[in-house]
Amino acid sequence: MTESAELTLSSLSSAQKEAAQNVVSPITVEVTRGSMVESLHRVSLAVVDAGGRVVLSSGAFERVVYGRSAIKPLQAIPLVESGAAEAHGLSAAEIAIACASHDGEARHVETVLAWLPRIGCDVSDLECGAHLPYHEASMIALLRSGAEPTAAHNNCSGKHSGFLTLAKHMGVETKGYIKYEHPVQQRILGVLESMCGLDLGDAPRGIDGCGIPVIGIPLGNIALGMARMADPSDQPEARQVASKTILDAMAAEPFMVAGSTRFCTRIMEATGGRALVKTGAEGVYCGAIPELGLGFALKVDDGASRAAEVATGQVLCKLGIISDTHAKSLADLIEPPLFNRAGTRTGQVRPAKELPF
Amino acid sequence: MTESAELTLSSLSSAQKEAAQNVVSPITVEVTRGSMVESLHRVSLAVVDAGGRVVLSSGAFERVVYGRSAIKPLQAIPLVESGAAEAHGLSAAEIAIACASHDGEARHVETVLAWLPRIGCDVSDLECGAHLPYHEASMIALLRSGAEPTAAHNNCSGKHSGFLTLAKHMGVETKGYIKYEHPVQQRILGVLESMCGLDLGDAPRGIDGCGIPVIGIPLGNIALGMARMADPSDQPEARQVASKTILDAMAAEPFMVAGSTRFCTRIMEATGGRALVKTGAEGVYCGAIPELGLGFALKVDDGASRAAEVATGQVLCKLGIISDTHAKSLADLIEPPLFNRAGTRTGQVRPAKELPF
Repeated sequence: MTESAELTLSSLSSAQKEAAQNVVSPITVEVTRGSMVESLHRVSLAVVDAGGRVVLSSGAFERVVYGRSAIKPLQAIPLVESGAAEAHGLSAAEIAIACASHDGEARHVETVLAWLPRIGCDVSDLECGAHLPYHEASMIALLRSGAEPTAAHNNCSGKHSGFLTLAKHMGVETKGYIKYEHPVQQRILGVLESMCGLDLGDAPRGIDGCGIPVIGIPLGNIALGMARMADPSDQPEARQVASKTILDAMAAEPFMVAGSTRFCTRIMEATGGRALVKTGAEGVYCGAIPELGLGFALKVDDGASRAAEVATGQVLCKLGIISDTHAKSLADLIEPPLFNRAGTRTGQVRPAKELPF
Repeated sequence: MTESAELTLSSLSSAQKEAAQNVVSPITVEVTRGSMVESLHRVSLAVVDAGGRVVLSSGAFERVVYGRSAIKPLQAIPLVESGAAEAHGLSAAEIAIACASHDGEARHVETVLAWLPRIGCDVSDLECGAHLPYHEASMIALLRSGAEPTAAHNNCSGKHSGFLTLAKHMGVETKGYIKYEHPVQQRILGVLESMCGLDLGDAPRGIDGCGIPVIGIPLGNIALGMARMADPSDQPEARQVASKTILDAMAAEPFMVAGSTRFCTRIMEATGGRALVKTGAEGVYCGAIPELGLGFALKVDDGASRAAEVATGQVLCKLGIISDTHAKSLADLIEPPLFNRAGTRTGQVRPAKELPF
């Protein structure tokens, strides 16, 4: 645990990057089966305040990672800050689904399908690709009905509807809105730079599962971006309003951010929105905690979501957001039991005995 | 790389176990996205001959792991060695599916459904539980037909049919054949002890995804078991025959061991059965290479199958079983590209730059 570290608020040198890459992240989550630990997960973590002070950490918070879908709340800032959300009368549910990796349950899909026509678009304008709903009962219902999944079922369809809304509001061509050079993505890049406190012009980059750019950012600086959403008091007024609007929407509509069975949704429900949390692919998890003015970001080295969730649960316990009483009622989420196909309990995903933070 | 190590052929002391647990496995597989490594996997490996000499290793081969489904070829030995397979006229396809984690494609399910009545059993005797086929097109076809998955679709249904066949042949009650105390599982435990060269009476244990016992065994000793299948010349004659019959069945019917799109099946097809390989849950992979008299076992610390496959590909390249020419035509398996939902290539799972073996 590091109490006094300060984030680098400029680009990292390649020596810093290499040094961070060579730190062996501590074992934070273990997976048991019967009388033995079967698998383990190494995790890096940074909990940061809006001034860039690292109040809790594990592993190398200088390590450059892709925030993936865990930074969707940051990516939603331009949608609100620009006035696009207000101009199109977006509801809290719509702003929440713009921050979502949703499971394709009926209300998720309906929300997107009701939104698109209001901006003069339809499903064919979404460039995220189609996939079956992640929610098993919804997937089975879709297949049994004989229908095919569309881009509206894609877990990112809400975020993409937000991008289309922003493009319309900016008066730019919507086609190609997922490309790095497109004004929508450039606007988001600018927001990431100012919120995370780093020049990202030369940052590593790639393409996300839904086609938009991913930008490599040091873990601690991603946490800083979340902290500045949690405590935007040093930000310009429009950003203060946007940050609060987005976090309030996630708190008001947690179902929209993920789904009825999902960790993000259930944690936000259980904490009454005291923590606004968001998962990302490859083991990333981010959160904003307004009452503490803190943000966090963590990355599981190996990319496992099961470990990112358990580590997030421990961060929230450590910060007092999940109380002991909560922890008991959330045991199936924060120390999830494992069952086999016949319904027999076989093991558990749980925090490592010597938690490194 | 360790050239001269010898396996411990008795129980490990708790000091040995703890020391092995504390070895940080080397980074063996990395996952890229765009211009950056996004995630990484640490892997332990042992390649062993039938005499217990470790010819190639990485990490701690004393580390105790559950072999999971990767040791199904070893678990199938009693089925053949007892005479049960011959008495019931089992085909190569049936013996191969007894060693399988199959994808629930039509021919897998049909094979099991044609086998069970011949031993006086039906699907309700399988104690593995039901799940949807892993093969996506088969899963979609099943759901669109309005049918429900049964235990025959369970990826372990062939192995369980083998257990039922053995129970019938032994003249014992079939019910409860998945329990540790049942004569079928005790017989398998005895085979594991003799093939892996360890007393397993006090070994850690738990319950597998399909309900049968899992037994904690040092990684190198699991590799020894596979090596003794590959080169059974020091074994009693019935075991020599059983080992050869099982490996020959896997070579003759690679589809039955996994499925049309799967790593196990495609590697055995591509190598013409020179390597008999088998995946297991939580990142375990095992193989037998008869022409070299070697067996191998590897375990990804974090349990990721994607890394176990890529590491297995590298072991087979290193041992000359996958030639440079093969490696090119198998590139989609041994260094698999990653695509997003829109079909754009986003990255790759590949061996680490400095492979530790």
